[in-house]
This record gives sequence, C-alpha cells and structure tokens, in this order.
Amino acid sequence: MRKLVLLPLIFVALSASSQQLSGDSVFIKRISNNILSSGEANDNLWYLCKKIGARLSGSPQMVKAENWGLAIFHKYGGPNSAWLQECMVPHWVRGGRDTATATCKINGKTQVLPLHVLALGNSLGTGTKGVKAEIITVKSFDDLESKKDQLKGRIVFYDIPFDDTLINPFEAYGKYAGYRGVGPSRAAKYGAVAVMVRSMSNSTDNYPHTGSLRYNDSFPKIPAVAIGLRDVKLLSDLSAKGASLTAFIKTGGKFFPDTTGHNVIGEIKGSEFPNEYITIGGHLDSWDPAEGAHDDGAGCIHTIEVFRVLNELGYKPRHTIRFVLFANEENGLKGGNKYAEEAKAKGEKHIFALESDEGGFSPRGFGLTVPDSSWARIETWKKLFEPYHVFEWRKGGGGADIGPLARNMNTPVAGFIPDSQRYFDHHHAANDVFEAVNIRELKLGAVNIAALIYLIDKYGL
Amino acid sequence: MRKLVLLPLIFVALSASSQQLSGDSVFIKRISNNILSSGEANDNLWYLCKKIGARLSGSPQMVKAENWGLAIFHKYGGPNSAWLQECMVPHWVRGGRDTATATCKINGKTQVLPLHVLALGNSLGTGTKGVKAEIITVKSFDDLESKKDQLKGRIVFYDIPFDDTLINPFEAYGKYAGYRGVGPSRAAKYGAVAVMVRSMSNSTDNYPHTGSLRYNDSFPKIPAVAIGLRDVKLLSDLSAKGASLTAFIKTGGKFFPDTTGHNVIGEIKGSEFPNEYITIGGHLDSWDPAEGAHDDGAGCIHTIEVFRVLNELGYKPRHTIRFVLFANEENGLKGGNKYAEEAKAKGEKHIFALESDEGGFSPRGFGLTVPDSSWARIETWKKLFEPYHVFEWRKGGGGADIGPLARNMNTPVAGFIPDSQRYFDHHHAANDVFEAVNIRELKLGAVNIAALIYLIDKYGL
Repeated sequence: MRKLVLLPLIFVALSASSQQLSGDSVFIKRISNNILSSGEANDNLWYLCKKIGARLSGSPQMVKAENWGLAIFHKYGGPNSAWLQECMVPHWVRGGRDTATATCKINGKTQVLPLHVLALGNSLGTGTKGVKAEIITVKSFDDLESKKDQLKGRIVFYDIPFDDTLINPFEAYGKYAGYRGVGPSRAAKYGAVAVMVRSMSNSTDNYPHTGSLRYNDSFPKIPAVAIGLRDVKLLSDLSAKGASLTAFIKTGGKFFPDTTGHNVIGEIKGSEFPNEYITIGGHLDSWDPAEGAHDDGAGCIHTIEVFRVLNELGYKPRHTIRFVLFANEENGLKGGNKYAEEAKAKGEKHIFALESDEGGFSPRGFGLTVPDSSWARIETWKKLFEPYHVFEWRKGGGGADIGPLARNMNTPVAGFIPDSQRYFDHHHAANDVFEAVNIRELKLGAVNIAALIYLIDKYGL
Repeated sequence: MRKLVLLPLIFVALSASSQQLSGDSVFIKRISNNILSSGEANDNLWYLCKKIGARLSGSPQMVKAENWGLAIFHKYGGPNSAWLQECMVPHWVRGGRDTATATCKINGKTQVLPLHVLALGNSLGTGTKGVKAEIITVKSFDDLESKKDQLKGRIVFYDIPFDDTLINPFEAYGKYAGYRGVGPSRAAKYGAVAVMVRSMSNSTDNYPHTGSLRYNDSFPKIPAVAIGLRDVKLLSDLSAKGASLTAFIKTGGKFFPDTTGHNVIGEIKGSEFPNEYITIGGHLDSWDPAEGAHDDGAGCIHTIEVFRVLNELGYKPRHTIRFVLFANEENGLKGGNKYAEEAKAKGEKHIFALESDEGGFSPRGFGLTVPDSSWARIETWKKLFEPYHVFEWRKGGGGADIGPLARNMNTPVAGFIPDSQRYFDHHHAANDVFEAVNIRELKLGAVNIAALIYLIDKYGL
C-alpha cells in the first residue's frame, strides 16, 4: 500500500439530528482521545502479565493480583474508591510439569513420541507412577456410548475437531467444550483410566489448551489432559495407518482446602440514583501455564480503563457504577456468585451489568440480553459507535461472572464482543501472553465499553 | 472465558425475503467452507514470504515471484488460464545496509547513539563517506518554511507524530505521508543536505518504516531515511533538554536502468458477456527489508484464493473475471498504469475492479466508488455479509493499482477493508513477515471478496 487514493471520510456527520446525541459524540470522543493517548493500559497490562503472571485461585499470585487491583483503583479514584469483597475459592494446583508419551507400534516397529499435554483444570493427578494404557479414540459422545464395552482399562482420546468452517469460533467452542467439561466422567463411567482431549483451538501450533473439567461424583475421578494439535494430527495419522497406540501420562493435579479470595471492586457513586447500580467487570484469575493476557487481563484492563477515564474526565454518573475484577471465574465462579449473592442480600437494585471476557482484540460490538423495549433506544445510539468501527448489536449475550445477576436478580446484561478470530489461538494456552495483545486494539475496546456505560448511565435502558 | 452462557445466534435467518438471496447465501457459504477448510492460503503465503521473500521491482525475487504467480494460476485454472503482461519498471536498490548515528552534546558531555534507520525508497545514497551535519527538527511544512534560513548544510528531521487519536490509522497515514513523499525535496530547496523522517506507525517498537519519496528535479536529490520510533523519542527527549545533535548517515541507494517486469494475470472467461471485465487484484512487489506479508502478500493471496475457489466450485461467471498480481505498486505504479493503458487501447469494457492492499486482517467491509444508482442494489446484499461479520460499506474507496482504470476508463472501483489497527505496526518495516498474518483472518478476507465479486458478476452494479 503506497498511498491513499480515495480516503473515505470516517467521521461522517451524525445523521441523528438531536443536539443531545451530538453532545454525546463529543463526550465519547473525549473518552477516546484520553484512552488512545494514555500509556496506562499498556503499563497496567504489562505489570499484570509480567510482574504478577498466572494467577489461578488460591495461588500466591492471586493475592498479589488482588492487591495490585486495589492499588490501581485507589490510584485513579482515590482512597475510598475501592474495596475487597471476600469469597471462598477452590485451590487446585497442577503439582509439577505434566508429561506424556505415546508408544506406537506399526509394521513391527516401535516408536516413542513425546506428547505436548496440559492437565485439565480440576483434574486429579495420576500419581508418581503415571498411567499407562492403550488409547481408544472416540469422535463424539455417541461414538463413546457405542464403544462402551471397550473402554475398561483404556485411555479415551476425545478427538473432536474444532470446526473451522464456523465463522464465529465461539460457536465451535460452545459445541465442543462439553467434551472437556464432562468427557472425563463419562469415560470413567465405563472404566476408562484416563482421558485425553483434543485442544479446542483454530490454531495450527502445538500448545495444549487447558480449561476446567467437572467430575461427576458417581464415577472414579480419572486424570485428564488436553493435547496439542500437531500431536493430535500425528496420532490421527498413525491411527489411520493401523498403528496400535499406547499412552503414558503423568500429572500431579490436586486440591488443597478452599481458601480466601476476593473480588476487587472500584466504585463511582451516583449523583441522582446512588442506590441503583451499573456493573462492569472482567475476571482477575487466569490459568497457570500463561500470563492470562487475553483471558482475562484484557477484561481487567478494560474495566480499569473505564474507571480511570471517567474519573479523569470528572464524569459524575447518575447511577453508581461498580468496576469489578472478579475472583475465580476459571474453575469455580465463586466471585461472580458472591457478588450477586451479596447484592441480593442487601436488596441492591442492579440496572445493568457488562462483562468483557472475550479478549483484547479490535472491538466489533455488544451482545445484549435486555428487555425488548430497550432496543428502540439502543437503535438511536448505534450511529455514535460507527466512527469507532462498532457495528454489531446482537440480541443475547452476557458473561459467566454476571450470569448470577442476570439469573437471580433479572439484571439486564451484556457482553463486549471483540473480533474473535484469534481468541482460541491463545485461550488457556501458554501463548496467552502480553505480546499477543495489540495495545491499540485493547484500548479501542475500552473506548467503546466506556461509551456504552456512559449512554446507559445517562439515558437508562 | 470459561464457558458460553448465552451463545448468540450467528446465522440469523436472512430477512431478505427473496429466494434468490437465499440461494446466494448458500453459494457464499460453499465459498466460505472451501476457503476455511483449505490449506492453500497458508501454504501459498508461506512460499511467497519464506521461499521468495522481498520482491522489489527489478530484483531477482521479482522474477521469481512472477513465475510463481503464473504457476499458481496454472495450477488452479489450467494451462490457458493465465499470462504475463510486460511493463517497464524502475530498478532502485538499497545498496547495502543503511547506518546512522547521532552525536549528542549536553552539559559538556558527548554521547554517540546508534540510530535505526532505513533509506526511503528511491532515495539516492550518501556516498561511501556518508553525510554528517547538525540536526534541525521541524514539526510541519509551515515550521520548515519558517526556518528556511537555518536549513543550509543541515539535516532536516521531520518529527511529525502519527496521530494515535484518529480511529482509522489510514487517516493518520494520509495526513503525514506527504512528509515522506515530498519532504526531502522541500528541505533540499533551502540547502538541507539530508532528511530524516519519523516512521509513520502506531507501534512502539523501533523498526524504521520505509516507503517512496518523489524527488522534485528542480532541487538537489538529497538522501533521506526513516527512523525508528524509540530513537525518535530519544532524540526528542535530548533535544528538549537542550542537547545539540549532529547526525551521521550512510546509505547506498541508487537506480539502475529500468527493467522488464510483469503483471501476472489469471482469467476465467465470461459465459454471457466475455468482453466485459471484472478485475480483482493485489500487488506482487514488496519493500526490500521484509517479506511483504501484509503488504501485499495478503492481497495476492486474496486474489489467488478467489481464483482458486471459483474454479474449484466450477463457477461459470457471466462476465470475464481477471485476477491480477500487479507489478511495481510501491515505487512506480507501472503495473497498474500498464493494465489500464492496454485495456483502453484494446477498447475493453471494464465494469468493476476491486483491490486488496490494506493487509490480511479480519474483514470489516468495502469502500466503493460506484454510481449513486448502485447503492440500492448493494443495500440488498448487506444481509448476506453479516454472518461473516462484515458491516462496513463506505462511500468512496479503491486502490492505487486500479486507480488508472477508475480515472481513465471511469470503471467503478472498490477497496477491500480489513481491520486496520495493526497495519501500520508492520507497514514497510522488517516485521512485515509471514508470522504477522493470522491465516484465518486472511482467509475470511478472501471469503468476503469472493462473495462480492460473485454478486457483482451475477447482478451487476
């Protein structure tokens, strides 16, 4: 690209005729200029990723991250602007490096291949001796059921491809995440001794992608690992050639007693309706093999940036706005549950909640679970977002941490939608690091979230 | 992100009631499934970047790239599907590694700092002795004019910040690219001996970003370099502290006589209107310090993928569709000019041309310079693109290579618009490499371009 031949006009005159919306566009541009000119988003994400790092519930880094979050809110909002909300969280640890090998016998030859694996979160370990057994591949739960008599004493390999033809990778993820969640117990039911799950990712690299499993207490709690996609291909190819495959897996996952964690909550008091709450949040915990940059450092930085910019611009909201770095989203959801529980116990009125937990990529839009009557108003706001390249307004959306508010208190909720094509390249894998986040894309997410929060505070839903 | 709480429905039922559009959505989904499932985009970009690499006009890699492009078209379209169109192209070479240092005197101390620089394309070299002179910083052309009496014998440093608050980085680029293009001659007019230009990029790294200058023959042709942004900051900070700054620059740029290059043209013959042409293209040349992955390997792969998929699906277009890998976009535009010139000479009727030259990022939309009467039809197509997250339809747009068709033959034109936030991190810099392209994002661009070409071929504009 050498030069611009026909530079399209980006900041089109807003067709909405009301002066009000034009005033809003000016305020949103001030938000945008502040965020895009500031180095804080970069510095804060860097610190969270590089100086704190992985921060799974119960880890020492969880405590560091909570203290850091509290200090950041105090820095931007003053000493009375934030507090910690206690909740008990699970304390699962990986217990050392996960290792695995496959022994392949084909045409009278034996080959031992190292496999790139990560124990699934909440998985119990194999013990120091590991588990060794023949691999049996299944392609679906139906396939599992049809092979139930062959599973005893074997390692079940859920080889479920991530459907690349689905345009929204979250759709592919939603389709297959159950194999990770309940696949281990469904295999254990028929006597399997361990489970391997194909990593849920569009990528072509070999990083295994972890994530939570949920054991069914009725069956033995067998160890389970995710396996990298290049190794998956290797095993598939060998299996197709008629090789007999045995795997050896050694993992050390275990639970310690539940421990104390915290939601970190910042607040800007409402001037007109101090007892009506708008919440925006992301989750502070992250899986242990990485830095949790996109998942969900990005959501934390979005939350902090909106807090920072509204404070810096001296915005006086009509409603009380809460900024929450939720505890324990990844393997328990104790933070989100606690937040809704306390809100309900105190009889708080929560008029809206927004979550950012789909990464720090270029903003595309929002998915909103709001009353039908709200859409006419939202329609009038769309033009305000177009200069920021936000065009997608989906019906339905929210997030795991604000789910309890939606379910138990009927709070209207929304999820921020960034571009999602690269998300599962990094999700729950060792390459979810600071360098994978483009800071400008991250900042633009914060701009658009701040704009929506501002409009909802000003006009309601 | 742990699980999907409320999975939004992506493939919404199309509200367009016509059966025709529903048939179109099925064909577009076939295009999409083919491209997203194929490994060809990945393998072709890899080959172009890693086995051929930088391919500036006149270089041996230019010839390799042309032969490669021709072979690729033959592979997907058969032996009569493609040819080379000859054109003379400039042959500028960098002539070795560009080097520079700054000597800084402040508080009686002298410090020598290495600077990361790249000669601007078309810049003549300094000679083996280099150029050494005091730096004078200017902040605009107005600033240059106001300091015209101080420029003699000095190195002019155009320190024009890239405006991060502009949401569309191309707008920032359009605003400042003139400093690179004509800045050297404007400084030479007043006796400056060399020019340094701040790299035009949002990034925070230190890669210098090159690009073409255009000498004014009335003034001495002084050497000019782009300088990395971290070094720019260093110089700015030192200058603000009152340091006296001298730079030494050594570059070896020179021209050889013009040489023969080629547009590589693939074609699918029209069944109804064989003498009416639709063109889609990107440019094959790329700057010498990198692999030209986004600029414009991506546009070449888009072009090739559309050719491949339409052939594979057995699509019989109504009009003749041309697929052009243009020669010499970066420092001459000889390929684009030649294509339009020959089209005009032969009296060809060109009904539409589309260019992809803004990178291989997630698709956002199209900018179209088409008759006003076409927009009603385009409006009916928008719904077909929404499942692919394409929502932006800008009035105005095109591309450098198809500019001559638009100007000289009044051809309606369009430019493909991917997400542009990361483009200037890589543009004309050493980090524009294969690894910077996300192949899924690249493929989705090809899907949407193919869909638009299909619709225009089927329904006209």
